[in-house]
Amino acid sequence: MSISSFYSLIKKLEEYWSGYGCSILLPYTSELGAATLHPATIFSSISAKDAKIAYVQPVIRPADGRYGKNPNRLYQHHQYQVLIKPSPDNLQDLYLDSLKHVGIDIRNHDIRFVEDDWENPSVGAWGMGWEVWCDGMEISQFTYMQQVGGVALSSIPGELAYGLERIAMYMQDVDNVGNLLYSKDTVKYMEVYGENERQFSIAALESYEYELLLSQFNDNAAQAKIFIERKLPLVAYDHCVKTSHILNLMDSRGFISVSERAKYILDIRGLVKQCCELFVEQEGSCA
Amino acid sequence: MSISSFYSLIKKLEEYWSGYGCSILLPYTSELGAATLHPATIFSSISAKDAKIAYVQPVIRPADGRYGKNPNRLYQHHQYQVLIKPSPDNLQDLYLDSLKHVGIDIRNHDIRFVEDDWENPSVGAWGMGWEVWCDGMEISQFTYMQQVGGVALSSIPGELAYGLERIAMYMQDVDNVGNLLYSKDTVKYMEVYGENERQFSIAALESYEYELLLSQFNDNAAQAKIFIERKLPLVAYDHCVKTSHILNLMDSRGFISVSERAKYILDIRGLVKQCCELFVEQEGSCA
Repeated sequence: MSISSFYSLIKKLEEYWSGYGCSILLPYTSELGAATLHPATIFSSISAKDAKIAYVQPVIRPADGRYGKNPNRLYQHHQYQVLIKPSPDNLQDLYLDSLKHVGIDIRNHDIRFVEDDWENPSVGAWGMGWEVWCDGMEISQFTYMQQVGGVALSSIPGELAYGLERIAMYMQDVDNVGNLLYSKDTVKYMEVYGENERQFSIAALESYEYELLLSQFNDNAAQAKIFIERKLPLVAYDHCVKTSHILNLMDSRGFISVSERAKYILDIRGLVKQCCELFVEQEGSCA
Repeated sequence: MSISSFYSLIKKLEEYWSGYGCSILLPYTSELGAATLHPATIFSSISAKDAKIAYVQPVIRPADGRYGKNPNRLYQHHQYQVLIKPSPDNLQDLYLDSLKHVGIDIRNHDIRFVEDDWENPSVGAWGMGWEVWCDGMEISQFTYMQQVGGVALSSIPGELAYGLERIAMYMQDVDNVGNLLYSKDTVKYMEVYGENERQFSIAALESYEYELLLSQFNDNAAQAKIFIERKLPLVAYDHCVKTSHILNLMDSRGFISVSERAKYILDIRGLVKQCCELFVEQEGSCA
């Protein structure tokens, strides 16, 4: 079944959510540690406007790099993200229906919603949520967002994040991500991403140098501050996510202690909060 | 006709080239000034292996930012990129067939191939090529790549770059990008990208500060050098494209003279050349 290739899975989800009325957006052009951090999700959540968006996003987590040799952990994995605001009453049904659409026969499997509230301290966001488990494996996260950038949300978005590698592994019945089919019947996942995994894992775990990372962390934080002053929240936020990625590299290299990491995260959260407050203020003054 | 929405156009091209046997890749997670700069195109071109890939790529050109107010110029536009190596004899027919597939009736329009060899000095790449004009408007670039990263190619790739906004404007019969439909019949292009255009144009033309850009240029160039020494060409190349984007911001802010710009481009080209030589050397030793 070529329908269950990694690429086909993305296409099927796109088809489903486009059919539901979502605008399909493109992945963001900076490294993100979670699909939620895409500015489209952050700013749509706090906007006064309704939202229906969906997109695939490469998710980069330097500390998870395993040189392309681990069956489950990757420097870069991929999430399919859906945000609908206000959340429809039948979001859970829509989600289950989307699984059917990609080819998972949910009647014959043990699908569980396991309560697991979600938070992302770097962007001051949290939500009430559930992990979705299929036959004992987590395949998605289901969240009703309550707060983003420290802003309490008046209209509650429903957010779905599908773990694409996990779902594809499940559908192709392989227990090692290296054995996934990427597309057609011939191209393997690791033909596309293997060398990338190997090299970026070496960089993230062994090679990045402290002084250069610190300098780039500080420069991006300084740029975020400048663009907050200049009242350009989208540009400021872009430098917040760059700062966050560099912090993740400092962490994967073991350069920072737990308490230093907490302090840096607090710095980023403070900047993201200002971006979000500014966005809300500007949108309000345009209304 | 919802078929001609901006998103549908991407989907139709994806469908066509996937049907032809291309692996559909995701956009790169750093800012690129051309879809060709995606590492998949650069390294597939110089690899000893055959290639069939296609992807959509946001293309960021700071100097073209016009606050979302210009009918044609954008801070960020989008290209659909196809690379097939070795180039099939019927690439021109395939291209024309792809136009038919997206819904352009080529018999009723004046399609011209205007000779225009292509080069990108930052990555030491050039090719024999043609601009494709439809009723007097350039809609694509068609290139037989000859050299990438200073490496002369033994197997010649055929490369297509579709200008998505231009083609969508043509198909929707609008003369201002601001009037494009993004998806369905209700979401306009500028609802998705308008505020992004406004803010990033202000940043690129009025707000970025020289010292921070210079510091980031130097830090990324230093990281590229480190990763060349550590024999990680994909990571080094990632910092080359980051360096290139920062140079483009220095340029859009008017911080550098024409001769300084040429010197900086030469620096980047030297680094990219080393990345490419290293890649070829490593691939050779694995064969």
